[in-house]
Amino acid sequence: MDIKKVKRSEDYSAWYNNLVKYADLAEHSAVKGCMVIKPYGYAIWETMQAELDRRFKETGHVNAYFPLFIPKSFFSKEASHVDGFAKECAVVTHYRLKVDEDSREIVVDPEARLEEELIVRPTSETIIWNTYRDWIQSYRDLPILVNQWANVVRWEMRTRLFLRTAEFLWQEGHTAHATAEEAIEETRKMLDVYADFAENVLAVPVIKGVKTPNERFAGALDTYCIEGLMQDGKALQMGTSHFLGQNFAKAFDVKYVTRENKQEYVWATSWGVSTRLMGALIMSHSDDEGLVLPPRLAPIQVVIVPILKKGDANEAVLKKAEEYFFALKKAGIRVKLDDRDTQSPGFKFAEYELKGVPVRIAIGPRDVQNGALEVARRDTKEKQSMAETDLVHKIEHLLEQIQNNLFQRALDYRSEHITAVNSWEEFKDVLENKTGFVSAHWDGSTETELKIKEETKATIRCIPLNNPEEAGTCVYSGKPSTQRVLFAKAY
Amino acid sequence: MDIKKVKRSEDYSAWYNNLVKYADLAEHSAVKGCMVIKPYGYAIWETMQAELDRRFKETGHVNAYFPLFIPKSFFSKEASHVDGFAKECAVVTHYRLKVDEDSREIVVDPEARLEEELIVRPTSETIIWNTYRDWIQSYRDLPILVNQWANVVRWEMRTRLFLRTAEFLWQEGHTAHATAEEAIEETRKMLDVYADFAENVLAVPVIKGVKTPNERFAGALDTYCIEGLMQDGKALQMGTSHFLGQNFAKAFDVKYVTRENKQEYVWATSWGVSTRLMGALIMSHSDDEGLVLPPRLAPIQVVIVPILKKGDANEAVLKKAEEYFFALKKAGIRVKLDDRDTQSPGFKFAEYELKGVPVRIAIGPRDVQNGALEVARRDTKEKQSMAETDLVHKIEHLLEQIQNNLFQRALDYRSEHITAVNSWEEFKDVLENKTGFVSAHWDGSTETELKIKEETKATIRCIPLNNPEEAGTCVYSGKPSTQRVLFAKAY
Repeated sequence: MDIKKVKRSEDYSAWYNNLVKYADLAEHSAVKGCMVIKPYGYAIWETMQAELDRRFKETGHVNAYFPLFIPKSFFSKEASHVDGFAKECAVVTHYRLKVDEDSREIVVDPEARLEEELIVRPTSETIIWNTYRDWIQSYRDLPILVNQWANVVRWEMRTRLFLRTAEFLWQEGHTAHATAEEAIEETRKMLDVYADFAENVLAVPVIKGVKTPNERFAGALDTYCIEGLMQDGKALQMGTSHFLGQNFAKAFDVKYVTRENKQEYVWATSWGVSTRLMGALIMSHSDDEGLVLPPRLAPIQVVIVPILKKGDANEAVLKKAEEYFFALKKAGIRVKLDDRDTQSPGFKFAEYELKGVPVRIAIGPRDVQNGALEVARRDTKEKQSMAETDLVHKIEHLLEQIQNNLFQRALDYRSEHITAVNSWEEFKDVLENKTGFVSAHWDGSTETELKIKEETKATIRCIPLNNPEEAGTCVYSGKPSTQRVLFAKAY
Repeated sequence: MDIKKVKRSEDYSAWYNNLVKYADLAEHSAVKGCMVIKPYGYAIWETMQAELDRRFKETGHVNAYFPLFIPKSFFSKEASHVDGFAKECAVVTHYRLKVDEDSREIVVDPEARLEEELIVRPTSETIIWNTYRDWIQSYRDLPILVNQWANVVRWEMRTRLFLRTAEFLWQEGHTAHATAEEAIEETRKMLDVYADFAENVLAVPVIKGVKTPNERFAGALDTYCIEGLMQDGKALQMGTSHFLGQNFAKAFDVKYVTRENKQEYVWATSWGVSTRLMGALIMSHSDDEGLVLPPRLAPIQVVIVPILKKGDANEAVLKKAEEYFFALKKAGIRVKLDDRDTQSPGFKFAEYELKGVPVRIAIGPRDVQNGALEVARRDTKEKQSMAETDLVHKIEHLLEQIQNNLFQRALDYRSEHITAVNSWEEFKDVLENKTGFVSAHWDGSTETELKIKEETKATIRCIPLNNPEEAGTCVYSGKPSTQRVLFAKAY
């Protein structure tokens, strides 16, 4: 397999691209910047969707669908919002093609020009708040707790599969509340939902925090985030939850009548995660042999490979393999029996390693005689012979173990890669040589933040929630500081 | 409720629009032709998706995702395809907005013009077959059985919520096969999946048939369809499955090496259903009181309304209502307990009628004393007092009965509205006065088909599968004919 041509330790970026390709997760399309999500990659995304959607519904949210297109004028209504997105908008200007009479080529029909250009949504605050104006009259109409699963487009010049593409898939929650307190509570609640999902499904430990003003979502009063740390020591923003205040309510004139019969503007939140999570998943657990999937996300949790030999007792082996298959399937485990006779066991082993299947079971004629089977873990690559007694429970337990081990391994790595520094030299040294999060005092100014970024490419990933107060001096400016914040180079 | 202002028998079209609005299913957006699917409507669509997706997976299909945008040049590669879609394409020409220096307004940046315009996908055959070229080398790579859930855009001037909108949601299956036989088998298999879904989930009887050449999908050799009949006697195409032959393989040069080591073009199918099915659902079962939902699709299958009175034994009533709620929920029934004290029972009854909830349970103090409850069916509006013994089984049985009754009622209506005619006068008379499907001899020419359409607005909905051979003369031209086909006015 060509994946092995590039080692993770040698060229992380090339290793990532190779893995995405050879594990059949995604590929570049003929449309610049847009990806094709291949069936195996999409199956993982579907599991993510199902796990997230269940959590959204358990916290009282419902799904809805709003238009793909946003009238250009809507953007201008919230000033910082248009600043944030204007430079990367796909713009629809015409609604018809025609055959050119001279060249006989298909051309855009100049007569079919739209009166007002439409933007392909980069995010839906504007069209949704324009809709909410009609949905909200009184406090009885609040809260509105709506989520949308959708595709969005942000025109990117430098793209990277899953991490940065012109079109990507995501969910965007847009909620409306009677008070600021309730909206802030919602913002934090959804951050907790994301953190729970990241840690317990993706097995990726995350730091919950708040962004600096400079890193805020365009139109937000506060942006909360979860930040993960990838194996190469770079951080990845994995989800954001925004407290939007009354900005969009004011821009779209959305008021409600309070219990006291007064008119007030409505309070808003929005929150989203995207197919970027596929990148986080890959870069948290995988290795030189390919993808490593946490069992809760794996489309195939267990694969059974019968070891068939010429002239051997193949029938008994196949029968036993089927018996295991049905027993595991019945227990709700996502199991696959690969009894193809066109490929060797060795080929199959490599294939399922590449695809990250957490547990592989192999059974040969001798195993059948012994009432045993060989079980291999993808995460540690350990193999063991296992008696078939109580097989289902043993496998269930093993899958739990793998899930926990992946999380613990990622957590250990991250713990080793949060480094408190107290001088500018140390800051640069850790960032370059040790990598990971650098915990340092910062004077709180955007000016310093931007200078540090310029000199080192490190950004402030977040101010962790419940950050302890600690008097100190800014690592860059020497000015007084009240707390440490987390810097890192990031995707 | 304003829904009652318009009766179904008086103005079917206005009744439909009213129902979609007041049952909170969808509404027009600020973007011309695009709809907002509201949470209640979207919950029904989600159930449709889950039921369809399960059927697709059971028949061996996997999901994937392809780009929203299609390069303009791709369209030109399959001649009839571009003819079919060019007149209704949303075209992206630019990728950036900017602030105009004079007016300070947000304008399209003329410097950010795309080299080649991008079309927002109206359907994805071209981008997908361009991708398949890299996925398919040998017979071992076939078949490819891929489905995509996506939004698509076909610029429509006259729109109608769910039935005809510029943007709609759908699924599109795109499969690739080694032989024509296998592709035709797939085309028919998916037609059967659609028919099964329509009849057993939507409770809408459908006629399976094949389209005339004139009504074929742009680029298909054969288009199969399922056709339903709405309450106003108009037909609705509810799903199509296309045998595409080698047209797209040739247009995008997709060949494979056969077992015999020869190069052959690949055979294709595509098939789709859309949010249009929401229209079919509404127009098959609903009445002057509102929506009527078949239980298998209803987001709420049973609603429990406690009848609370001042000074009465409310606590016992609420306790009993909760007991029923948990018993039904535990059995997997989608049940809601509406114990709001801000609305009267009468208000709630009307609301759940409007929303089409199949079963309503009411419990008052006397019911509690008697160990009984009042059960109302949405489909027949019958009410009965029911002893609480064995409640869960009784309700499960009732939901089945309602599902079957809705299907049978729609089937009876349709059976009464397929009329065989033998003269042109009779044809026009039935079409105008009785409405429904008209079964008539047709000479097989597109010319006659178009003339009939021009004179009567009726189109050939399909040539039913397994249509009996029957010698006759064309009802319009008098020329010889070998079989009857189904005409109707249609949405």
